[in-house]
Amino acid sequence: MISAPSLTKDELDEVYGKGACQFQSSDHLMTLVFSQSRPFDLIELEQLLQSVGWSHRPARKVRRALAYSLLKVGLWKHEAGLPRLIGFARCTGDGVIEATVWDVAILPVYQGYGFGKQLMSYLIKSLQEMGIKRITLFADPGVVDFYRSQGWVLEPRGNRCAFWYAN
Amino acid sequence: MISAPSLTKDELDEVYGKGACQFQSSDHLMTLVFSQSRPFDLIELEQLLQSVGWSHRPARKVRRALAYSLLKVGLWKHEAGLPRLIGFARCTGDGVIEATVWDVAILPVYQGYGFGKQLMSYLIKSLQEMGIKRITLFADPGVVDFYRSQGWVLEPRGNRCAFWYAN
Repeated sequence: MISAPSLTKDELDEVYGKGACQFQSSDHLMTLVFSQSRPFDLIELEQLLQSVGWSHRPARKVRRALAYSLLKVGLWKHEAGLPRLIGFARCTGDGVIEATVWDVAILPVYQGYGFGKQLMSYLIKSLQEMGIKRITLFADPGVVDFYRSQGWVLEPRGNRCAFWYAN
Repeated sequence: MISAPSLTKDELDEVYGKGACQFQSSDHLMTLVFSQSRPFDLIELEQLLQSVGWSHRPARKVRRALAYSLLKVGLWKHEAGLPRLIGFARCTGDGVIEATVWDVAILPVYQGYGFGKQLMSYLIKSLQEMGIKRITLFADPGVVDFYRSQGWVLEPRGNRCAFWYAN
């Protein structure tokens, strides 16, 4: 049986930063890595976000937004020499009471493997390690069931989401 | 006509910090100040939040959450020697794309003067000055109309709010 090679602890640390976490796809053909510290190529990140329908955002703003995020997680398909960014999510928050999830994306060609669910589990675990007991997000209509099936409560106690837009 | 005294620019800076903003209540009997830098007495803040029904949070967590908030606004009733905290709101976010409002509270005895609306306007203006074009919040059923009347859009494009709770 062919199986994608795993990285040694040292390789993992070197390429993806301390605390990175690897796993194999269920068909064993891909080695995937969650990293909170491997830097993003902003063009690759922009392509990922646009592939799932996000509108364009200036690189300058994205760079700053990443710097001020509580947590940003890249899901990388490991390839020697050139890891490929296939998933992303980030959180804003105060790191102790409130954490809000934004920009959850899996590259369409890698959807259907359960990576989105694993990404959310990884993100929740990371936030729990900070002591956070409640996480919030705004769900598009198309992903409401995705979140509900993972234990997210939609509009608890009749809460509604409200957006204010400039102009 | 009796009117509450205004503070000089120096007094305002000294007591409430740079950038504080004063105004009078519509009956001219109170001088009110918005401040982003006057430190909070955590017991006074806790009493304010509990007065509007928030549950108790440990001071240690609140202190840290304030430190890591993007913006925190106190609404103070000015009294020489002892300003009184009568309103509060804070935001988390990345300071450039996302900002989320939390813990909006006006002490019940001061509700009905329009202070909540003024607090939200002040907060929006402050976030706009950072370049933020979209602000989000989670509205309890009882305050949905309050936000809607101020131009907030409830569940735009079918968005839903989702909460994840530990345990």
